[in-house]
Amino acid sequence: MELIAGVPLLFLTLTLIATSQASQVEKPLPIHPLRSAYGSGHDHHLHGISCASWRLGVEAYNLRDWKTVPSSCEAYVGHYMLGHLYRQDSKVVVDAAALYAQGLNLTKDGKDVWVFDIDETSLSNLPYFAKHGFGVEPYNATLSKQWVDTGKGPALPESLRLYKKLLSLGFKIVFLTGRQEVQRKITVTNLKEAGYHTWEKLILRSPEDTGTAIAYKSSKRKELEAHGYRILGNIGDQWSDILGSNVGQRTFKLPDPMYYIS
Amino acid sequence: MELIAGVPLLFLTLTLIATSQASQVEKPLPIHPLRSAYGSGHDHHLHGISCASWRLGVEAYNLRDWKTVPSSCEAYVGHYMLGHLYRQDSKVVVDAAALYAQGLNLTKDGKDVWVFDIDETSLSNLPYFAKHGFGVEPYNATLSKQWVDTGKGPALPESLRLYKKLLSLGFKIVFLTGRQEVQRKITVTNLKEAGYHTWEKLILRSPEDTGTAIAYKSSKRKELEAHGYRILGNIGDQWSDILGSNVGQRTFKLPDPMYYIS
Repeated sequence: MELIAGVPLLFLTLTLIATSQASQVEKPLPIHPLRSAYGSGHDHHLHGISCASWRLGVEAYNLRDWKTVPSSCEAYVGHYMLGHLYRQDSKVVVDAAALYAQGLNLTKDGKDVWVFDIDETSLSNLPYFAKHGFGVEPYNATLSKQWVDTGKGPALPESLRLYKKLLSLGFKIVFLTGRQEVQRKITVTNLKEAGYHTWEKLILRSPEDTGTAIAYKSSKRKELEAHGYRILGNIGDQWSDILGSNVGQRTFKLPDPMYYIS
Repeated sequence: MELIAGVPLLFLTLTLIATSQASQVEKPLPIHPLRSAYGSGHDHHLHGISCASWRLGVEAYNLRDWKTVPSSCEAYVGHYMLGHLYRQDSKVVVDAAALYAQGLNLTKDGKDVWVFDIDETSLSNLPYFAKHGFGVEPYNATLSKQWVDTGKGPALPESLRLYKKLLSLGFKIVFLTGRQEVQRKITVTNLKEAGYHTWEKLILRSPEDTGTAIAYKSSKRKELEAHGYRILGNIGDQWSDILGSNVGQRTFKLPDPMYYIS
């Protein structure tokens, strides 16, 4: 499958069919013909909600603190994530980030940093979400953790492209994730397996790192800058990755209509 | 205007100007057959650019400081603005704003304020842009000013709905616009004509208000708060309306793929 490195589409679609919530997804097998079902998006209403407009509301930070994807938008979000548009949307973000990055004059003293979030930024959990309603099911900590512990998250191809580009330009990469410190080992394995072979720092949540993602990530970025790093870029799929303090000279928001982290 | 070539644009714009603001978005009669031409959006490429992804990049603040709409996206943006999706996208924003507003406990001392931008927030310039390439043509100060001076900008129907809702809840409305002080009279006329019949303040740019929109608007909002106003909400179509200082307790970004103001 072109969109998710290493994940065969057949696996995903068969998985969809095999699970209970698959029945809610309108005929998942032939993805392509279904595109016309949600089609242009602009008049795709399910129970009064325009799912395309809901998604835009999420990406533009107009909709906040939502718990789950509207159930009427499961098929829409599923098709979005599995189809071309998610990749295209990510490509536009990464193209803008790459253009910005190559226009910078780096000091190249080892302190020029680009911050990457991990989930839905560097590594995709789409194989998990495809089996769990694409964000319609409430967050399940146990199942999510089991999935992460498989270490099988594929790279987001556009993000991996940005990562390689930044390395070639001389950036140091810092991964800053809401994953727990106990998940360090499997995260390292997964990152390397997916193609992220090197980094300056991999920062995970310690037990003492309580508070919101915004507070936790701001505090870690502040520490980075206190140690002389210059955060020139910062990319994440959540607004909480790029809001708060010390956000970096420029921020980039990758699409994620599946979940919201405050 | 390749895809719009067959549309009697003159008819459209005359309709826009001549009718109440609701009709412009609800039933753009001759547009409908054309929708299939730009269709699903998600794989709509013109010269290598996905216009749907470009638009998302704009709305999520990933694309900044752009001068004009990519010429290959003229038809896409035109259809977006004249079709259902622009209205739907605006509705989601306004629904979220109304929900937030009605959840607040207002002090009702006359200092509970909601800030509205004017162009593409309160009043639409779509009749102008429909005649000038929907943002593909470079900004033309003379022509733009001529259009504004007609005072015929229709209300954005969703924004007008929010305005009325906020008044009924007890908010004071402050219009804060990049329009020049010399345009005050026609702006007052246009606002009233369009249905915005009252406000606490209408703030326009004085000759001494130089600098970016972000700086100008931040400074004016700071003054408001210095005078005891509490900015509980702030809505605009540009990121420069809602970034900077004193942005308000919560901000809302209306869609605008036609131009960028820094």
